Amino acid sequence: MEISKQTINQLSDNSLYKTLGIRIESAADGKARARLEPTAEVCWPFSGQPHGGILFTLMDTTMAWAVLSQGESGRNCTTINLNIHYTQPATGNFFVCNARVVHQTARSSFLTADIQDGQGRLLAMGQATFRIIRAEFLQ
Amino acid sequence: MEISKQTINQLSDNSLYKTLGIRIESAADGKARARLEPTAEVCWPFSGQPHGGILFTLMDTTMAWAVLSQGESGRNCTTINLNIHYTQPATGNFFVCNARVVHQTARSSFLTADIQDGQGRLLAMGQATFRIIRAEFLQ
Amino acid sequence: MEISKQTINQLSDNSLYKTLGIRIESAADGKARARLEPTAEVCWPFSGQPHGGILFTLMDTTMAWAVLSQGESGRNCTTINLNIHYTQPATGNFFVCNARVVHQTARSSFLTADIQDGQGRLLAMGQATFRIIRAEFLQ
Amino acid sequence: MEISKQTINQLSDNSLYKTLGIRIESAADGKARARLEPTAEVCWPFSGQPHGGILFTLMDTTMAWAVLSQGESGRNCTTINLNIHYTQPATGNFFVCNARVVHQTARSSFLTADIQDGQGRLLAMGQATFRIIRAEFLQ
Repeated sequence: MEISKQTINQLSDNSLYKTLGIRIESAADGKARARLEPTAEVCWPFSGQPHGGILFTLMDTTMAWAVLSQGESGRNCTTINLNIHYTQPATGNFFVCNARVVHQTARSSFLTADIQDGQGRLLAMGQATFRIIRAEFLQ
Repeated sequence: MEISKQTINQLSDNSLYKTLGIRIESAADGKARARLEPTAEVCWPFSGQPHGGILFTLMDTTMAWAVLSQGESGRNCTTINLNIHYTQPATGNFFVCNARVVHQTARSSFLTADIQDGQGRLLAMGQATFRIIRAEFLQ
Repeated sequence: MEISKQTINQLSDNSLYKTLGIRIESAADGKARARLEPTAEVCWPFSGQPHGGILFTLMDTTMAWAVLSQGESGRNCTTINLNIHYTQPATGNFFVCNARVVHQTARSSFLTADIQDGQGRLLAMGQATFRIIRAEFLQ
Repeated sequence: MEISKQTINQLSDNSLYKTLGIRIESAADGKARARLEPTAEVCWPFSGQPHGGILFTLMDTTMAWAVLSQGESGRNCTTINLNIHYTQPATGNFFVCNARVVHQTARSSFLTADIQDGQGRLLAMGQATFRIIRAEFLQ
């Protein structure tokens, strides 16, 4: 299914995303895309570069949206494991993460994701397992 | 070597740590310890629980301090790979991460780390490789 | 519980272990220990060194025994994810893997493990999630 | 560059590959493809299914060929880290691994890979870092 722009905007309007600079762009059929325009606060210790943990958070949350875009309402998900590799320093004004569910079982989702800069250079890649849990998130 | 309390305090006084609620407690001889008292802003989507990416950031930065505590000045480090497993939901007011260098080569460090809550329950475990780079960080 | 020496020996007498040179030494209360004396066949491409995949297999199977040592009969387990870091070349005549369950839920086990050579040098470290399945293995 | 069929065949004729049932099919320009027709010996504990460590070995060695296919002679590579997720049980007569270098620096390669069965179902996915070392392998 496709999560509507309205739902995305409503749920994206949260303190975490604002604090870090994350915006979800789309989530449909097991794929999601998000954008990070890091706030100055989270660019440390290298000025102008978001901390690696912020890139991880971008990837983790984009993956979660990809999982949610596969299901009906009344479910949420939680990360069991995420392995991230950083390939290059993250310089630039914005970063784009694409995540994709590659396999789905009743209770688990397996995903891959990558983060690119504005020139399409690969900055990070990840793979993960998420667990599906019963909880309201999408409404 | 042991990184002095004064140096730790000076370097910990940065926008990232304040925004998330991170405080480094000690860093000596390849081991470091840090504490997260998450700000309300980064507790989302589960109220009262820091986002998994914030726990990751805590782990990643604690590992970095462990690496730095092994070396002389004029060096810094960067994460190549970090694999994190989340074992339980992170409820509680504060969280403690302990990181340790388990092997060191000229250019790389291998580390393990875990995050516990105030009762000593394991919430996350991780292992990583960091690369040593030439850059001023500790002074 | 402790898996008896007799059961270990009986189940260890299988074609995989013989082909690679694996022997389980103990399995009790969520901890297991195994030994690899690699056959010449699996030492490639570096003569005298077991292939990294053989070290992985040693770790994976030791972890499985650690999981099995926690439970009653009528269950088996399967690897969901295993992340391995190789810290040093594996030279020597034998290698020892120690695995440990660090967290257990109804259906999943989280583990860490390491592999050392005869001098106690760390050669590899790993962390993993296993899923518990219903199947006869221990009898 | 493309590693010639002759070189592949010559180097593939080794005891490890024969013991497990691995055959390299192609290696060119940072991509490699290999096939596993597991020997009966390595199908344990589930009859007819290669042990997860054998699938890992297939993936690890295919990745190595992908790395080697990027470079000139006089170099070899060694695995630093490989993270593998198993998505489904590996049933079937043969399995195919595709590996790809996604980023390359002077001393390191970053790769992704997957393993599929004969019907194209995803059985395992992995990502890794390899280090380039000076050693004769391809001649």
